[in-house]
Amino acid sequence: MFNAKICIRFKNGVLDPQGAAIKGALNHLGFEAEDVRVGKLIEVRLKAESFDDAKAKVRMMCEKLLANPVLEDFSFEVVEESI
Amino acid sequence: MFNAKICIRFKNGVLDPQGAAIKGALNHLGFEAEDVRVGKLIEVRLKAESFDDAKAKVRMMCEKLLANPVLEDFSFEVVEESI
Repeated sequence: MFNAKICIRFKNGVLDPQGAAIKGALNHLGFEAEDVRVGKLIEVRLKAESFDDAKAKVRMMCEKLLANPVLEDFSFEVVEESI
Repeated sequence: MFNAKICIRFKNGVLDPQGAAIKGALNHLGFEAEDVRVGKLIEVRLKAESFDDAKAKVRMMCEKLLANPVLEDFSFEVVEESI
């Protein structure tokens, strides 16, 4: 069994109104936030035959379902679950 | 200038309908996902006087604004921006 931690972010240049709202709220609270970007964190526990198979499956999950390739970039880490 | 990467997850035991929907969709596509949890990824670029000051500020941001302490846990990493 493998655990994948997938980070999905808007590409540079794509407007992020949620990030802008959080930046405004943080600065209103007295923090000095210069830039805030909001993304998604998706953690998947999956079956795969090997570490390479797990990485290939996670990449396919991102490309087919989890990320919108027009607007978003993804990155991920995979670790094998210890028994 | 410091960059913080903040991960906000539902606590264990809190229902995650978005994760359940993604799990269903992944399994429908032929993947063998055992469990899917969806969280938020918030990246903040902030001013602080030192590394410890930056970590303290990010913790306060999470406690005051970014995470809901009833439902969510947070973790974060802070790195100093190289000039």
